[in-house]
Amino acid sequence: RWCFSLQSFNNVQPPSRKRQIQDPPIEHDLYVTLEEIDKGCVRKMKISRMSLAQGGNQFKQEKVLNINVKPGWKAGTKITFPREGDQSTGKIPADIVFIIRDKPHPIFKRDGSDLKYTSQISLKQALCGTTISVPTLQGDRVQINTFGEIIKPTTVKHISGRGLPYPREPNRRGDLHVNFEIKFPDTLNSSCKELLNEILPA
Amino acid sequence: RWCFSLQSFNNVQPPSRKRQIQDPPIEHDLYVTLEEIDKGCVRKMKISRMSLAQGGNQFKQEKVLNINVKPGWKAGTKITFPREGDQSTGKIPADIVFIIRDKPHPIFKRDGSDLKYTSQISLKQALCGTTISVPTLQGDRVQINTFGEIIKPTTVKHISGRGLPYPREPNRRGDLHVNFEIKFPDTLNSSCKELLNEILPA
Repeated sequence: RWCFSLQSFNNVQPPSRKRQIQDPPIEHDLYVTLEEIDKGCVRKMKISRMSLAQGGNQFKQEKVLNINVKPGWKAGTKITFPREGDQSTGKIPADIVFIIRDKPHPIFKRDGSDLKYTSQISLKQALCGTTISVPTLQGDRVQINTFGEIIKPTTVKHISGRGLPYPREPNRRGDLHVNFEIKFPDTLNSSCKELLNEILPA
Repeated sequence: RWCFSLQSFNNVQPPSRKRQIQDPPIEHDLYVTLEEIDKGCVRKMKISRMSLAQGGNQFKQEKVLNINVKPGWKAGTKITFPREGDQSTGKIPADIVFIIRDKPHPIFKRDGSDLKYTSQISLKQALCGTTISVPTLQGDRVQINTFGEIIKPTTVKHISGRGLPYPREPNRRGDLHVNFEIKFPDTLNSSCKELLNEILPA
């Protein structure tokens, strides 16, 4: 998968005879989806850098760096490619560093190795019970039956082992936490309100 | 009002004949209540510092600094008392700086010049209507009547001009925002659930 290409430029410095210096690392953010973190992936990053020919002339070189994103990697993880920056006489090329960042997901939020999902249900479903079909990052759905209980605005259901892999133990996974957004009716007629007034506790 | 006393110590340095140096400011957090921010207040801070007598001997001196906290001051506001740190030969005494911090309030949360209050109501009150008595920082209460509407978990009511004074315009105030925490019943019997199932929209 070809994501984008990076250009790095350098200032040609006069050659130093004392000791070789190295510019600070060149850092790039690497946004990965939760699906990529879930399974791991290889991201190919095309870089373009100045290289030195024999004789000291610079020429532009294109190169592909393979980044092996392991399952469960946390945002902030750094992958360093030593000395892959521009080459110039008398200088050590800078390191190129990619920093893993979480790409926002349309339905899940990441919390370490856990995932969070918010299920929208009606007030009727919250009070009378319902079956909730929870999507998972792995693609299948898990059914939760709530007929025996009342779902409150603070209720959280935990689906064990359906989060992201633990980075150091990729066979084990965090949990999927299900929160609820309870949709209230916009209006209720007065006879309905009278009945509710009789039924519901104070 | 005497709040606490501060001790500052210093390292006696050999006198310098070149130029007088000054240690970095000595910073202290000053926690103030929302009531104090609301009206403004004077806080007397007792400091104890080393002073120089004629002849160069140091002696301990107690002093009171008056901090005039103005209505509406934001957390982070700094008040500097120049050169009130320890005196020693050949050195400029350090500045003493107080930094305003918000003391957490049992019922209000500060948001700039606005205040937030969370009202706990039952599901019955949320659906059938109620009168809410909202406390204010000024001590009186404001009544909100909700009989004509349904209070949802996301509902926010705004009471204009009942927040904190604006620091640069202390005659004007921010707003008091009222959020709702709706308490659901823990259980409902089956006949009650059947009725709700008929009454409530899907």
